Amino acid sequence: MILKNDTFLRALLREPVPYTPVWMMRQAGRYLPEYNQTRSRAGSFLSLCKNPDLATEVTLQPLARFPLDAAILFSDILTVPDAMGLGLYFAEGEGPKFERPLRDEWEIKNLTAPDPSVHLGYVMDAVCQIRKALAGSVPLIGFSGSPFTLACYMIEGGSSSDFLHTKTMLYRRPDLLHHILEINAKAVSDYLNAQIESGAQAVMIFDSWGGALSEAAYSEFSLAYMEKIVSSLHKTREGKRVPSIVFTKGGGLWIEKIASIGCDAAGLDWTMDIGRARSLVGDRIALQGNLDPCVLFSTPDAIKAETQKILESFGHGSGHVFNLGHGISQYTDPENARIMIETVHSSSRKYHEVASQ
Amino acid sequence: MILKNDTFLRALLREPVPYTPVWMMRQAGRYLPEYNQTRSRAGSFLSLCKNPDLATEVTLQPLARFPLDAAILFSDILTVPDAMGLGLYFAEGEGPKFERPLRDEWEIKNLTAPDPSVHLGYVMDAVCQIRKALAGSVPLIGFSGSPFTLACYMIEGGSSSDFLHTKTMLYRRPDLLHHILEINAKAVSDYLNAQIESGAQAVMIFDSWGGALSEAAYSEFSLAYMEKIVSSLHKTREGKRVPSIVFTKGGGLWIEKIASIGCDAAGLDWTMDIGRARSLVGDRIALQGNLDPCVLFSTPDAIKAETQKILESFGHGSGHVFNLGHGISQYTDPENARIMIETVHSSSRKYHEVASQ
Repeated sequence: MILKNDTFLRALLREPVPYTPVWMMRQAGRYLPEYNQTRSRAGSFLSLCKNPDLATEVTLQPLARFPLDAAILFSDILTVPDAMGLGLYFAEGEGPKFERPLRDEWEIKNLTAPDPSVHLGYVMDAVCQIRKALAGSVPLIGFSGSPFTLACYMIEGGSSSDFLHTKTMLYRRPDLLHHILEINAKAVSDYLNAQIESGAQAVMIFDSWGGALSEAAYSEFSLAYMEKIVSSLHKTREGKRVPSIVFTKGGGLWIEKIASIGCDAAGLDWTMDIGRARSLVGDRIALQGNLDPCVLFSTPDAIKAETQKILESFGHGSGHVFNLGHGISQYTDPENARIMIETVHSSSRKYHEVASQ
Repeated sequence: MILKNDTFLRALLREPVPYTPVWMMRQAGRYLPEYNQTRSRAGSFLSLCKNPDLATEVTLQPLARFPLDAAILFSDILTVPDAMGLGLYFAEGEGPKFERPLRDEWEIKNLTAPDPSVHLGYVMDAVCQIRKALAGSVPLIGFSGSPFTLACYMIEGGSSSDFLHTKTMLYRRPDLLHHILEINAKAVSDYLNAQIESGAQAVMIFDSWGGALSEAAYSEFSLAYMEKIVSSLHKTREGKRVPSIVFTKGGGLWIEKIASIGCDAAGLDWTMDIGRARSLVGDRIALQGNLDPCVLFSTPDAIKAETQKILESFGHGSGHVFNLGHGISQYTDPENARIMIETVHSSSRKYHEVASQ
């Protein structure tokens, strides 16, 4: 099937595009009333993730509302450790938790990478169904958490503000953490490759917590494993290149290192000026980002102005996928997201005009 | 009175020192059993802050245990908004809160900078008493929160993970936020100058939340106001230069901008390699930091090795004050802090040797 809108894929490969493509992290989410309706039908967030019909339904909801240039699989990064047997659950108002966090050496040594076709079949079913439902309108992004980010949740047993257990292991028993990261890297590789085989046309690795590390620890415990994954990913599918995006939240400081691991693009949170990031990475990779999601709580004029500032900072030429610097907040007025999206489309054309003789 | 150990002040001014001085953010705190005893005598954290005798007692406790090169006033950054009438209180296990957060325009317009001698007299009394009690052993650091960080707490009414109210005001009503920041900058200036007059020998501005902003917003809403404060500070006291330190947590990306606002030193959290930071700021300012506090949960050998890596990364010459990259965790074993401190002293001498002919 021919892809009607391949702007997103072309921008990731720094090929010419008529305008800057845009999508939003967490675009299928709680800020949309239709999402909340489907979620309440599903009963819980986890049932929603595990039901391919409903996951397909919510994946498509933001695309029905807005002229987005990509769809992203509706799922959660913690499905992988769940498939490893850690017992994922969501305590009301407390975020994700694991029944059996990884602390003991014997548990760590017994950890194995799940077979995605067996333990994560519901994700692959969702990917297939979403591709079919998209009918070639826009590409579908598959994703996973990074090995380090998954390890943080697996060791802490849930969210954390300081990652004390994880970092204690990092400095006290680096061998154990490396063992977990090896298994996680294998799990993530297999998982992303299975998504690509099921139809994902680009993949993104979410490294939500790598930014909590020192520069040396980031290189050794997060970036090295993402590099391993990137090098093991299927590079083409259906005769098309499948681009990969690596996003370390808080990783602006290390953008040059990220640009050298073989990924096609890097996500940027809003703390780094995107023009500065571009000047550091040159034409090695594309950049995705980076509006502060809080801007969507302001006025239409301010949303337009802040969106335009980012387009202007990136400047002329391809290699920019517009996005928020983090997931859209559940309290966002969807009409404000629309203003951002329409501004990206209308205001970016001038940066893609080819100079005529 | 002659200062017996002025290594800390000399390092901040990049003057020759025999070894790298060291102190720890939150060195008078809950990881020390003697602190917890004094605190329980005081009844609450806030009563401890407001009682100059007890504040003096806890300020001196870490110095009685460890060979630290500086003392820091025991207080809280939120004493300033408390003095502005916002009603600071500490809900058990929930962190600081304000009874009357700043949301309405008329409240914002009525905000005034407190007179430190009237409303913060207990802080000045503590500074005088601590100086007397230190008896010239090591210098005393005074401190304040940054205007932006104080504004975050004042607007949110407490801690926050996303600063949604503050950033909504930033993008929707920048005029109102600038008004608050003007008042806060005046308040912080007056407060730090009063601390200097009472005997503080160096001052530090804690910008805990500036790192949550975009680069442009950081310059306009946080850094600009710290620059204003730095330029208004008393530069000398008792014939000695009073150095200033600016610490934006998560501000490594902007270290060159921070180096240009006139402060003597910048604090660094652990995410940026200190050698890289030094190469960016050159000899414009000194650097303070930057061991991940979580390293203190590891083994003696790992603590020594990580401490030595930071000394090695900074390299030869003066201009480095060793510190953690954030406050010491309440769960730290004090003996591990001792290992770090002793390692800094013993391992740093070689970086300060003057090459002989």
